[in-house]
Amino acid sequence: MRNDNREHNQLRTIEIIPNYITHPEGSVLITVGNTKVICNASIEDRVPPFMRGQGKGWITAEYSMLPRATTQRNIRESTKGKVSGRTMEIQRLIGRALRSVVDLEKIGERTVWVDCDVIQADGGTRTASITGAFVAVVLAFGELLKNKAIKEMPVTDYLAAISVGILKEGIEILDLNYEEDSEADVDMNIVMTGSGEFVEIQGTGEEATFGLNQLKMMLKLASEGLEKIIEVQKEAIGALSERIGETKK
Amino acid sequence: MRNDNREHNQLRTIEIIPNYITHPEGSVLITVGNTKVICNASIEDRVPPFMRGQGKGWITAEYSMLPRATTQRNIRESTKGKVSGRTMEIQRLIGRALRSVVDLEKIGERTVWVDCDVIQADGGTRTASITGAFVAVVLAFGELLKNKAIKEMPVTDYLAAISVGILKEGIEILDLNYEEDSEADVDMNIVMTGSGEFVEIQGTGEEATFGLNQLKMMLKLASEGLEKIIEVQKEAIGALSERIGETKK
Amino acid sequence: MRNDNREHNQLRTIEIIPNYITHPEGSVLITVGNTKVICNASIEDRVPPFMRGQGKGWITAEYSMLPRATTQRNIRESTKGKVSGRTMEIQRLIGRALRSVVDLEKIGERTVWVDCDVIQADGGTRTASITGAFVAVVLAFGELLKNKAIKEMPVTDYLAAISVGILKEGIEILDLNYEEDSEADVDMNIVMTGSGEFVEIQGTGEEATFGLNQLKMMLKLASEGLEKIIEVQKEAIGALSERIGETKK
Amino acid sequence: MRNDNREHNQLRTIEIIPNYITHPEGSVLITVGNTKVICNASIEDRVPPFMRGQGKGWITAEYSMLPRATTQRNIRESTKGKVSGRTMEIQRLIGRALRSVVDLEKIGERTVWVDCDVIQADGGTRTASITGAFVAVVLAFGELLKNKAIKEMPVTDYLAAISVGILKEGIEILDLNYEEDSEADVDMNIVMTGSGEFVEIQGTGEEATFGLNQLKMMLKLASEGLEKIIEVQKEAIGALSERIGETKK
Amino acid sequence: MRNDNREHNQLRTIEIIPNYITHPEGSVLITVGNTKVICNASIEDRVPPFMRGQGKGWITAEYSMLPRATTQRNIRESTKGKVSGRTMEIQRLIGRALRSVVDLEKIGERTVWVDCDVIQADGGTRTASITGAFVAVVLAFGELLKNKAIKEMPVTDYLAAISVGILKEGIEILDLNYEEDSEADVDMNIVMTGSGEFVEIQGTGEEATFGLNQLKMMLKLASEGLEKIIEVQKEAIGALSERIGETKK
Amino acid sequence: MRNDNREHNQLRTIEIIPNYITHPEGSVLITVGNTKVICNASIEDRVPPFMRGQGKGWITAEYSMLPRATTQRNIRESTKGKVSGRTMEIQRLIGRALRSVVDLEKIGERTVWVDCDVIQADGGTRTASITGAFVAVVLAFGELLKNKAIKEMPVTDYLAAISVGILKEGIEILDLNYEEDSEADVDMNIVMTGSGEFVEIQGTGEEATFGLNQLKMMLKLASEGLEKIIEVQKEAIGALSERIGETKK
Repeated sequence: MRNDNREHNQLRTIEIIPNYITHPEGSVLITVGNTKVICNASIEDRVPPFMRGQGKGWITAEYSMLPRATTQRNIRESTKGKVSGRTMEIQRLIGRALRSVVDLEKIGERTVWVDCDVIQADGGTRTASITGAFVAVVLAFGELLKNKAIKEMPVTDYLAAISVGILKEGIEILDLNYEEDSEADVDMNIVMTGSGEFVEIQGTGEEATFGLNQLKMMLKLASEGLEKIIEVQKEAIGALSERIGETKK
Repeated sequence: MRNDNREHNQLRTIEIIPNYITHPEGSVLITVGNTKVICNASIEDRVPPFMRGQGKGWITAEYSMLPRATTQRNIRESTKGKVSGRTMEIQRLIGRALRSVVDLEKIGERTVWVDCDVIQADGGTRTASITGAFVAVVLAFGELLKNKAIKEMPVTDYLAAISVGILKEGIEILDLNYEEDSEADVDMNIVMTGSGEFVEIQGTGEEATFGLNQLKMMLKLASEGLEKIIEVQKEAIGALSERIGETKK
Repeated sequence: MRNDNREHNQLRTIEIIPNYITHPEGSVLITVGNTKVICNASIEDRVPPFMRGQGKGWITAEYSMLPRATTQRNIRESTKGKVSGRTMEIQRLIGRALRSVVDLEKIGERTVWVDCDVIQADGGTRTASITGAFVAVVLAFGELLKNKAIKEMPVTDYLAAISVGILKEGIEILDLNYEEDSEADVDMNIVMTGSGEFVEIQGTGEEATFGLNQLKMMLKLASEGLEKIIEVQKEAIGALSERIGETKK
Repeated sequence: MRNDNREHNQLRTIEIIPNYITHPEGSVLITVGNTKVICNASIEDRVPPFMRGQGKGWITAEYSMLPRATTQRNIRESTKGKVSGRTMEIQRLIGRALRSVVDLEKIGERTVWVDCDVIQADGGTRTASITGAFVAVVLAFGELLKNKAIKEMPVTDYLAAISVGILKEGIEILDLNYEEDSEADVDMNIVMTGSGEFVEIQGTGEEATFGLNQLKMMLKLASEGLEKIIEVQKEAIGALSERIGETKK
Repeated sequence: MRNDNREHNQLRTIEIIPNYITHPEGSVLITVGNTKVICNASIEDRVPPFMRGQGKGWITAEYSMLPRATTQRNIRESTKGKVSGRTMEIQRLIGRALRSVVDLEKIGERTVWVDCDVIQADGGTRTASITGAFVAVVLAFGELLKNKAIKEMPVTDYLAAISVGILKEGIEILDLNYEEDSEADVDMNIVMTGSGEFVEIQGTGEEATFGLNQLKMMLKLASEGLEKIIEVQKEAIGALSERIGETKK
Repeated sequence: MRNDNREHNQLRTIEIIPNYITHPEGSVLITVGNTKVICNASIEDRVPPFMRGQGKGWITAEYSMLPRATTQRNIRESTKGKVSGRTMEIQRLIGRALRSVVDLEKIGERTVWVDCDVIQADGGTRTASITGAFVAVVLAFGELLKNKAIKEMPVTDYLAAISVGILKEGIEILDLNYEEDSEADVDMNIVMTGSGEFVEIQGTGEEATFGLNQLKMMLKLASEGLEKIIEVQKEAIGALSERIGETKK
């Protein structure tokens, strides 16, 4: 039995509120259990220096937690004067994942800045960030379409992420909350597309190792969970959801 | 006529949602017009080195904006690796203001960390932060009272803040929104207590100067506005509001 | 009775030595009691990026203390690798104050860098910096006039600053020295023009609050003190003093 | 055909020179094709603050490249004043992987500092670092055994790492060199133990996605390659290799 | 002929004003031609961590220039957030030189912080700093003697520094000003004791090289110049000068 | 008798392996006793901003130690986020020394980046770096000559460096190892050209001072030692050695 009475293959409640903040081109508040992340997508009409002159766009992400998103208050990274390794790892992951389902040639020399700010944390903040950021990015492209700045929706497929893991007792579970995550032997984050292809697999067993069968079981749990998550994304995206996939890679 | 049709002495709509985030001892979301700030108060059971051994507590504040709280995206201070002068000025102001109505001897060797995170900005973020932070701090002390960690509510009086200014045409106005703030000749932030005493006056006329009569007019506007704001604080604080002032300085 | 036998409305001795350092376009050593600040104004023939192409100039200030300007040695900010919040607050104040009496359009695309370096501190270093910096800036513009780089003195009025405060006993005093400043309940810095208009009011009562009548009394003290200070500035400026105000805002 | 004429399942030549540098407790130079990494393991007789008093040890890793390890010279991270996200990601991975096969309770309150310095890079620097670091750590523990500072070899199993990927043409390959890595659609790093269990799987398809069958194929390639690599480790470790596994987790 | 009409072996005018700043235990303003440096010596009653428990003291120095000490304004090192290589080199030199004539055992577990702040620069700022710092340190020890914190003057000998160089024409000169320094082929700084022993020799010929005879000629010039400088130090030190050398190394 | 049985005027064994690393234009591994330094020279086809448009090139050096090059592990400078004063001093010295024997006009608007990375340290790392870097730079220019990017070898003379010192007993010695260096009274680094001219003399007696005769004795030791070192350089340079000096300054 899990600490919040869920089945081993049961997701927590997911809610995605579109257009959460006024100023960004795309903005959502995603809630996964007690994890809450504001995902904003901002369009800038130029690309970073290393991309200039190629006629292509770029997507980059930043991730942060409010100091008291967690049980214990964390020191603000701006106060420390540097971004932690964990933060860097997460923001590189978010950016890379989003770029895998966007045809950068279709967005012209623009940068999409994705900001994922965790206001409350209870495990799975990086996967909630990816899932929410995908919706924010689609909404931002919706603005570009409305203003005729681009002609096609440049998003080739859905994209969502979830965690899976193995509890000490050897049971594979889906969507770990903070307490489960702290105690699990193995922790794996899976990013998949709407058509069920893998985008990222990051599995680690710091205190433990895992075998091929356990890996397969975790991939199955993730795959089934992600299908349901994508349904929630579709609803938040609304009419624009029909245009996803009109661009093929 | 003001750009949002308010009277010169009219506040924007203010709402304070108590217990907004789960983990902090005190937490509110304050909304002033389109400005939204999450104010969290965290209790730490020790004081900074320069305060140790005095049997007194400390209150310190940090202030930050989400990168896209504003019309244009700002670079994250953690990415820049340093906190701007503006941010430092604001967080020093918030901490100083809160300390003026708290009897630090009554809280023992504890630090109250106040985090004001602006998620949407439309002018007056520093005054909204003070107004919201006051409520968060009272709620956090409420937790200490409940756990019998302290015996008296250490808050000596209400505390709230508002901006006033002078438009180019020479008209004094209350509670400037972003557009007004950008265009005003004079901008002044006033922090007051529930008994109408000044805690901070910060007035500046970068492009202009102002005379004594204008100053008096602005102080009057602020004073009247702050009375109304304190009513909103009382409601958010609820039953605990009766205990404010039980400690005298 | 004050600790140095002054009357409550008595300034400390002020001396301004013009042309103190050789290289800067404008340079003074200002002495206020035991506080000594070197104020240098340097002219650079370009403006910061955010000002380019507007045909206007800019004035910016930096403030620093020698490590042993104070009773206890302070760690050098260059060694710490960052500028403190207090320093940032002061240098922002100095720059803002100076810009309020200079017509930036008249100086063309030039930057005036004002450096205020406190070599000995005994309270009132930020107000002494403003008072001294004003003279250094006028001298620097004098050089530009002499070289015919500008045609008019771009300074619209005199500018000086002083502190006022309220002692624990409730007595308002003018021009606090370090010991008074440490013990005062309320500390306020006033920046005014030669015509008696306010440029900045920054009043704070960390341990205490203050009422409207106390505020008025402090403003009166400041106003009378600043008149005398401006006389000292005039003498230091010499012949150029006649040209102040030839530009109107 | 691969650019260096290898079969799709063929490793590059691997050489591990033990005791490469004099001062460290454990030191190797590992060469994988044209990639060369110095891996040093240093024993410090204390643990970081967050581990104190638990009677356990800690293993942490740092990774760096000489500026001209690569075709183009990179700016030194010490000169930039900060460590890049990529570096942080890699050093976190190395430390985590090593900790999975060491019984930290057996090493007492000691820290093992692992330094992986790439002196020449041609792809696979992070996996070569893990493979080499494992040997350096075993050698360092050998020193502790020799000095009777510990009684048992605390290493529970072998540990090695390799990359696999999918070329644009859809062919899965083992041990990518730099050119292959730049062009591959999918890049995956696998860390495994001597008994064939997974420790880390990090797979990413920035430009592409991959299906379950492709994943299985890559895991198989990695698994077969790692068996051969562990043979090379055994030889470098020499007599000590018999003691690996005497501690069980 | 030199650009300021001096003979090749002629020093610029040197003046040392003792007790220049109020707060430091020792303080001088040294003027060498147009170079002006404030040298303050502060006594702290503890030593840095690496010296603790040895019963010995430490002397360390910091060096800085006001931004407009030079013809062109330099960016403040506190603003840049890091200290330049040149500054580090100079402050290491000053500290090392002073330690060579102080018996650190005689000062107990105290640190002498020496701050050399150049307020006006015209060449030779590092040598003027050493010459002035020596006097400031002696004055600070004088305070310790007066307060009976130490029993003996711990200074074993006089210490002063000067520059020598070789002009493009091949002429060796003493005490280079800024213009000479910029044009000289060889630049050498010599630190010597009162008994004519070398403490530091730092000679460099970036654009040129120099032979043994030229070296000897420069050492002779320096030696004669330093004798005169030590006379100026003696006068500034006054009565305390008799106690220098009462401690032997 | 020296701790490694050398005569007072005896060098340690020196070996220079040319073309040590593949990617740099010039690369050597220099071994001096137990000190090992990788010296890489990289050619960049542009100069730093302050040199642009002058038609001249630039040579700059960076120096670093692997954390465990020394007996005790040092914290990585990239982790500390800043380069130490010692490192800065050394890299400024290396760059300056190399520039003294290169005609920068002959290399066009190119920068030579010299990286000296100490992989094992036993005293004399800075002098070994200079000696090795000289060879790496010559090899890099050899590449430019081969590609006809330059016409003449721009190196005007040989350049090598060595340390000399005075042991506590008053004996002058050549080429100090780490233990000798820690105990010596006086430590001096000498950089000379092939024709026996001085380029740099840096002598310091932190705990002691030294007289003119001792200085002369040390210069003689250095001079004789450097002649032998240059023979080793010649061998490593091979055929290119004939072209050194074809450019005269």
